[in-house]
Amino acid sequence: MRPFEVNPMNETIRLLQNHRSIRRYAPRPIPEEMVEAIIRSAQAASTSSYVQAYTIIGVTDPAKKKALAELSGNAHVETCPLFLVFCADLRRLRVAAARHGVEAQVEGTEPFLVATVDAALAAQNAAVAAESLGLGICYIGGIRNRIAEVCQLLEIPRLVYPVFGMTVGFPADEPGKKPRLPLEAVFHRERYEPERDRHLDVYDETVRRYYTERTGGQRTHGWTAYIAGLLKEPRRTHMLDFLRRQGFLQDTLGAAGRGERP
Amino acid sequence: MRPFEVNPMNETIRLLQNHRSIRRYAPRPIPEEMVEAIIRSAQAASTSSYVQAYTIIGVTDPAKKKALAELSGNAHVETCPLFLVFCADLRRLRVAAARHGVEAQVEGTEPFLVATVDAALAAQNAAVAAESLGLGICYIGGIRNRIAEVCQLLEIPRLVYPVFGMTVGFPADEPGKKPRLPLEAVFHRERYEPERDRHLDVYDETVRRYYTERTGGQRTHGWTAYIAGLLKEPRRTHMLDFLRRQGFLQDTLGAAGRGERP
Repeated sequence: MRPFEVNPMNETIRLLQNHRSIRRYAPRPIPEEMVEAIIRSAQAASTSSYVQAYTIIGVTDPAKKKALAELSGNAHVETCPLFLVFCADLRRLRVAAARHGVEAQVEGTEPFLVATVDAALAAQNAAVAAESLGLGICYIGGIRNRIAEVCQLLEIPRLVYPVFGMTVGFPADEPGKKPRLPLEAVFHRERYEPERDRHLDVYDETVRRYYTERTGGQRTHGWTAYIAGLLKEPRRTHMLDFLRRQGFLQDTLGAAGRGERP
Repeated sequence: MRPFEVNPMNETIRLLQNHRSIRRYAPRPIPEEMVEAIIRSAQAASTSSYVQAYTIIGVTDPAKKKALAELSGNAHVETCPLFLVFCADLRRLRVAAARHGVEAQVEGTEPFLVATVDAALAAQNAAVAAESLGLGICYIGGIRNRIAEVCQLLEIPRLVYPVFGMTVGFPADEPGKKPRLPLEAVFHRERYEPERDRHLDVYDETVRRYYTERTGGQRTHGWTAYIAGLLKEPRRTHMLDFLRRQGFLQDTLGAAGRGERP
């Protein structure tokens, strides 16, 4: 444990606050020692009730990365040296409990949530560890675009699902840092404070300036306009059916779907 | 950006791998500069499509902490100087889009997932930042035990839900590090490899040794036996109904529930 500090800045905080997503990588493999350090750091993250309900699949095979790039619509999934697929994994808990004659009760919304959060906490530790080693990363939510095909390609079984991917590699560019919401909008005190929505005005200006500068005036919208465009139509509407088929969220099936009488 | 390193160990990775949950805190408030550094670090985490779909509620009010401790069944929620409640927040996206005459489509499983993951990534950055400052943290999933009452207490509106809490404070004890699953069990190569279940045997031995030593022989079970006991009965079965009432997972309602004809 480190001694208490009064100055709220140090190497780790600087690293965290300096994050940007990297989408171009040098054609240089990642030393195995680094991969191990990244995975061990991921594993050290907190886990709900010690369940450790996730599995990380490391993909380096060029053909598989190419296929995953196509399935996710992200070219850099092919060009990164290492693609990590973070899976929520309740199957392992079933296997563990079965050794003691117990069928683990993992098919409801709560275990789905637990496994998803466990995978995310591990992933963020992996991201921080990778960046501390001079690597760059980018989360790939796009693997949910054609998630059933991703599962087929990676032989992902029932009670496991890929939450997101992460490209990892030595950075070949240094993109700008996207401005975040004002702290005042995100951090509430003692209760949820909807009146903090007022900070969206200033933020729209900040984002407008950022895009205008970065695109030479080609994009000039603020954040709220961007969100309006992004969410006009529902996204990835296949997710519920996919997750149910994969064994998750069984409690969302009505009585009829579960074969019960109403 | 830091220069490339070959040695896969540094201060940040040491910090990540040295994590343990802290449940006893010194009666000492956290300087406001530290709180701000923690929140800014949380905000710097990756966010799906730039939506930043989370809100962090900081609770320091003794009466509120006491109530939250009771609702979550965790005494240290009362004794920690700062309790952070990480909320998945789709409401802000609705507000943002409404400024442009758009009703953001956020009621399905996919946006629920996005907001939950966004909150978790931010939280893990907050945890790492806090620990880098000499603070200790503990995730509190227990706020989902009586989650509707937590929402009432913190005035959490529709389309927002508290995913978990986090106690933060200066550590008053130094608990042991709980052994994680073998890396070989969690990290798969090129595909999901169920044959890696075999590593559970060794892990059971590791955990058995850990508990035996730590409890002077009072607890001697391995990990798989622990999981069997934990998951014999379904947990927090109210979550689906709660989330639906809160505006999430509307696509899980059958045609009848959505008021449509079958």
